[in-house]
Amino acid sequence: MTMQVALFGAGRIGKIHAGNVVRQPDVALRCVIDVDAAAAQALAAQHGAHVATADAAFADKAIGAVVIGSSTDTHADLMERAARAGKAIFCEKPVDLDAGRARACADVVQRAGVVCMIGFQRRFDPTFAALKDRLVAGEIGDPEMLVVTSRDPGAPPVEYLKRSGGIFRDMLIHDFDVFRWILDDDAATVYATGSVLTDPAVGTVGDVDSTAVAIRTKKGRLALINTTRRAAYGYDQRFEVLGSKGMLQAGNHKPTEVTAATAASVSQDKPEHFFLERYRAAYAIEMAHFFDAVAHGKPVRTTIADGVAALELADAATTSWREKRIVEL
Amino acid sequence: MTMQVALFGAGRIGKIHAGNVVRQPDVALRCVIDVDAAAAQALAAQHGAHVATADAAFADKAIGAVVIGSSTDTHADLMERAARAGKAIFCEKPVDLDAGRARACADVVQRAGVVCMIGFQRRFDPTFAALKDRLVAGEIGDPEMLVVTSRDPGAPPVEYLKRSGGIFRDMLIHDFDVFRWILDDDAATVYATGSVLTDPAVGTVGDVDSTAVAIRTKKGRLALINTTRRAAYGYDQRFEVLGSKGMLQAGNHKPTEVTAATAASVSQDKPEHFFLERYRAAYAIEMAHFFDAVAHGKPVRTTIADGVAALELADAATTSWREKRIVEL
Amino acid sequence: MTMQVALFGAGRIGKIHAGNVVRQPDVALRCVIDVDAAAAQALAAQHGAHVATADAAFADKAIGAVVIGSSTDTHADLMERAARAGKAIFCEKPVDLDAGRARACADVVQRAGVVCMIGFQRRFDPTFAALKDRLVAGEIGDPEMLVVTSRDPGAPPVEYLKRSGGIFRDMLIHDFDVFRWILDDDAATVYATGSVLTDPAVGTVGDVDSTAVAIRTKKGRLALINTTRRAAYGYDQRFEVLGSKGMLQAGNHKPTEVTAATAASVSQDKPEHFFLERYRAAYAIEMAHFFDAVAHGKPVRTTIADGVAALELADAATTSWREKRIVEL
Amino acid sequence: MTMQVALFGAGRIGKIHAGNVVRQPDVALRCVIDVDAAAAQALAAQHGAHVATADAAFADKAIGAVVIGSSTDTHADLMERAARAGKAIFCEKPVDLDAGRARACADVVQRAGVVCMIGFQRRFDPTFAALKDRLVAGEIGDPEMLVVTSRDPGAPPVEYLKRSGGIFRDMLIHDFDVFRWILDDDAATVYATGSVLTDPAVGTVGDVDSTAVAIRTKKGRLALINTTRRAAYGYDQRFEVLGSKGMLQAGNHKPTEVTAATAASVSQDKPEHFFLERYRAAYAIEMAHFFDAVAHGKPVRTTIADGVAALELADAATTSWREKRIVEL
Repeated sequence: MTMQVALFGAGRIGKIHAGNVVRQPDVALRCVIDVDAAAAQALAAQHGAHVATADAAFADKAIGAVVIGSSTDTHADLMERAARAGKAIFCEKPVDLDAGRARACADVVQRAGVVCMIGFQRRFDPTFAALKDRLVAGEIGDPEMLVVTSRDPGAPPVEYLKRSGGIFRDMLIHDFDVFRWILDDDAATVYATGSVLTDPAVGTVGDVDSTAVAIRTKKGRLALINTTRRAAYGYDQRFEVLGSKGMLQAGNHKPTEVTAATAASVSQDKPEHFFLERYRAAYAIEMAHFFDAVAHGKPVRTTIADGVAALELADAATTSWREKRIVEL
Repeated sequence: MTMQVALFGAGRIGKIHAGNVVRQPDVALRCVIDVDAAAAQALAAQHGAHVATADAAFADKAIGAVVIGSSTDTHADLMERAARAGKAIFCEKPVDLDAGRARACADVVQRAGVVCMIGFQRRFDPTFAALKDRLVAGEIGDPEMLVVTSRDPGAPPVEYLKRSGGIFRDMLIHDFDVFRWILDDDAATVYATGSVLTDPAVGTVGDVDSTAVAIRTKKGRLALINTTRRAAYGYDQRFEVLGSKGMLQAGNHKPTEVTAATAASVSQDKPEHFFLERYRAAYAIEMAHFFDAVAHGKPVRTTIADGVAALELADAATTSWREKRIVEL
Repeated sequence: MTMQVALFGAGRIGKIHAGNVVRQPDVALRCVIDVDAAAAQALAAQHGAHVATADAAFADKAIGAVVIGSSTDTHADLMERAARAGKAIFCEKPVDLDAGRARACADVVQRAGVVCMIGFQRRFDPTFAALKDRLVAGEIGDPEMLVVTSRDPGAPPVEYLKRSGGIFRDMLIHDFDVFRWILDDDAATVYATGSVLTDPAVGTVGDVDSTAVAIRTKKGRLALINTTRRAAYGYDQRFEVLGSKGMLQAGNHKPTEVTAATAASVSQDKPEHFFLERYRAAYAIEMAHFFDAVAHGKPVRTTIADGVAALELADAATTSWREKRIVEL
Repeated sequence: MTMQVALFGAGRIGKIHAGNVVRQPDVALRCVIDVDAAAAQALAAQHGAHVATADAAFADKAIGAVVIGSSTDTHADLMERAARAGKAIFCEKPVDLDAGRARACADVVQRAGVVCMIGFQRRFDPTFAALKDRLVAGEIGDPEMLVVTSRDPGAPPVEYLKRSGGIFRDMLIHDFDVFRWILDDDAATVYATGSVLTDPAVGTVGDVDSTAVAIRTKKGRLALINTTRRAAYGYDQRFEVLGSKGMLQAGNHKPTEVTAATAASVSQDKPEHFFLERYRAAYAIEMAHFFDAVAHGKPVRTTIADGVAALELADAATTSWREKRIVEL
């Protein structure tokens, strides 16, 4: 039987998800919900769906799953309503900007017993996932150190930053999830520092654009994360794991494999420009994973508990940075 | 108005094309034709099309375009029938194994005035196409030399080889097309040599599995092509162009960007395994290119004349190898 | 006139320096001093020098320069005696394990007005030095972030570790010097953490074998250093600088440029095995730099003040790690 | 006992050899012979040698070995005189531009029974030699195909070209030697073509600046060589061997391992500029190999027979190019 899906959010990420939803076998996009009626209408029309309200969607017995790609402040409410309506949930990160609210939401979802997956798409990236598989297979022995480099090609508008929860919750939440996933370990202590280096406007809203984080895990492993909002050469998404028997590195993807040798240098393409390009495959694979889990009762790779845990790390990092102290967890 | 398409061939390449046909906007797969009824039925069902005979397809006024992925010996006939029926044509390479037959077919097609594109998918590969664009843009000045490396991961069955037309027509035809496309020049002399190095059975059917070709063009440029049916490390598809101001190289694509450093070495993935993986994007882009050309009256990048020219080069190389002499064109 | 040199220390590093001393134009190795008489004799004989005592060497008016490669606990005394004797000084790092003693030594040396250079050879490595030159030339704008990866192929014996001053003073002192040199900036705060992950014996002498350090500079830049005593794949010496206009990375050197593609993977050589191989060129260049500075009154690139500053950073890191707190400088 | 050496030629390559001669243990440079008295004097003075005439050098019983780096037209005569005087011989390639003359010289040398080594330094390059060792060790099974890329950064003056013997004898002789050495096989047929693409002046002296060569060996292996006098990006010296179990590639060496990522691209250094830089290590290793062979009666890796064989291949290629035909050997 075909699974009918309601999509919340017809913006940039909503469009990506819509395309991936309709590509799944035995899955149909039934309706699109967005405060921007025109956007909802356009996206619905493109995929043979209709526009709906949230109320109508939750009341629609035919709908078996919701995909939530609307603004962050709607996530927890929509997840709770979906859970109570017995619908499977795919929701973009973060669960909420407030950890308490996120935990409450997770309680509701878990009590409802519905499938719930948070969109940490990096775990589905072919390069990242292959690295994880090889690590688990023991190729480099026990992991000892993790170095994450996570750099955006340019900062979002200051208006966005104001409502973002700060760089640790908005941007590093992905890196904290990668940290937990790769090391399969929890932070014992977190130290975070940051600076405004790319644009003074970032500082005017009480945020930073460049960060350095050092984590020591319960098992004594070490992790270092460095991020910036502005890397002139594009979207830089790398990490490396040192283990007792070697090192695994996840490198950037390039648009092409052209090399140019000239009188000046030997050069290759810059990394894929930004997350929509870099994680195109990851977004497709995570959606297939979600519907496969829903259809066959399999566990999801990125649970709401993972969403809460990453948020708690982001909170700890924010506190460490603000209060200039080491935070114990 | 939606363009209705008939697909000839429900085998490996037919399935690829079917998936790409249905992904085009305003294009629908109407029917599938294959001597293997079950295969035709399965592919048609998957894409909401029906099974048809060739006669029915050519007679169907609703059909505006045909995609031909059936066996080589059917290509020329099907193209001629499609041309006479006024349908746009996308046909897999080669036009025919016999150059005379191919030229005759090209005449029919050209007189009919229909859009006709031959499936030299490499011209649509993102890496190859980017290299070509940069070459045309003058990044390395005038091209002087081309070195093509084209290696399959393993030989097809000897039964296939018997009917293949020989390695120069079956395998190097792609490389000859790349040569013509990249240099935008014609061969003046061709020298080809070959050996049976991977499997003695290849020799029993009068073919070789390893070749080396040297071409001098009308403009005095030099090209070297090396091929093998069996590269132990996978599908190796590279070329490099030396120009007066530098060099452009098209490298292999890898499944992931994982690097492993161990006590033994620092290693990366092998190339994508074979053509279906390596040229997945190319197949999608060429089909979009075809329907865009049909819809908007644009020229196609790979004409039937290109198909004939590549075949003539393959014939020249075959003669050079068989007769141990330099062939002038 | 030929500069006559006294070499203190005929061990591993002493041999390297001896070879580089005798290769300088207008420089001669006059004598070798070592508590191990046989080692001194062998090295002296190899280079046409004689064995001497420290007293004799300092009293020898013909000697214009000393090269100190003896054990760490002798450095400060020998430098002070050399300074008082008016001889130019090249001394291996560190100045001393005690920062107070190091500062006192620096005072003596500076008052004496002799040329004094500390052996931070990494500043002379062709790759590192080229990166620094390009950074200074503005190729990536203003530096914002530095990530240093510094991994040894294996830990020294525990007996050595006992007298080493701890990993921050023994091993990271090089990384702290690189940090200061590359960013041309000073640390405002230092956070260091560490673990015993490679060998429990390291913990028994109160040391760690794996460290993570986060520094915020006076100008608000961020630096992250990660080190281990044991990288299974060899000596890993990399760093990268993110700037406002791009990134510069210094990669490892490999013994050869052979690539092997097999059914398993595509692999290259591991990095050069250890510091004697990796920094062979650097040791030669630093010695040439020293004698050039002595001969022509040029400033040295690595002063005793640099040696003291790196030691102070090592002390701060040690305190941060031991006391689990952020240290302000 | 110290081996006394006479060096013929105080030019560019003579200086390289002089530096490497004096670095050998138990070897001394006794005299330098050059028609340019000032050059001979300067080089002799630098290394504590004296200037001599050829007659004096050959008559000097103390001299055990000669190193010949003078102009090509002197090689055969000097080797014959040295052989008759019973001195070990190291001679730069080629033996002579005339194969008959080279064979006659080889006869004289072989009858004299002296050690004689021809300076095909590429066989001593660390990357090339490591590849050969791994090939011999069976890492990629039986070799099947060889692709050699050999490109100079710029053409020598036309005056030089006139006396060079043509590009096949002057430049490709190295590549022919690499071909013989790597495959350990002989050419059965040679096809060569060429063009004047970089500078019309090259054509005025009856030569070409760009070549493509295809060789089929006695064992049926295939080899392709491409060369140019002018690669805008520098000295390009690569080759790859395809074997039954994989591929080995020898890549270019770079001056540094710096990578720069900017808004334009991700770039690395160009290859080492020219042969003096690229083969610095090779020149040192080949000289050590020579004196080791002389001292211990070991065979040399590059015999005068190798020199003759490479010349015969160069002749065959020249004939193939001039007469536009396939040459059988």
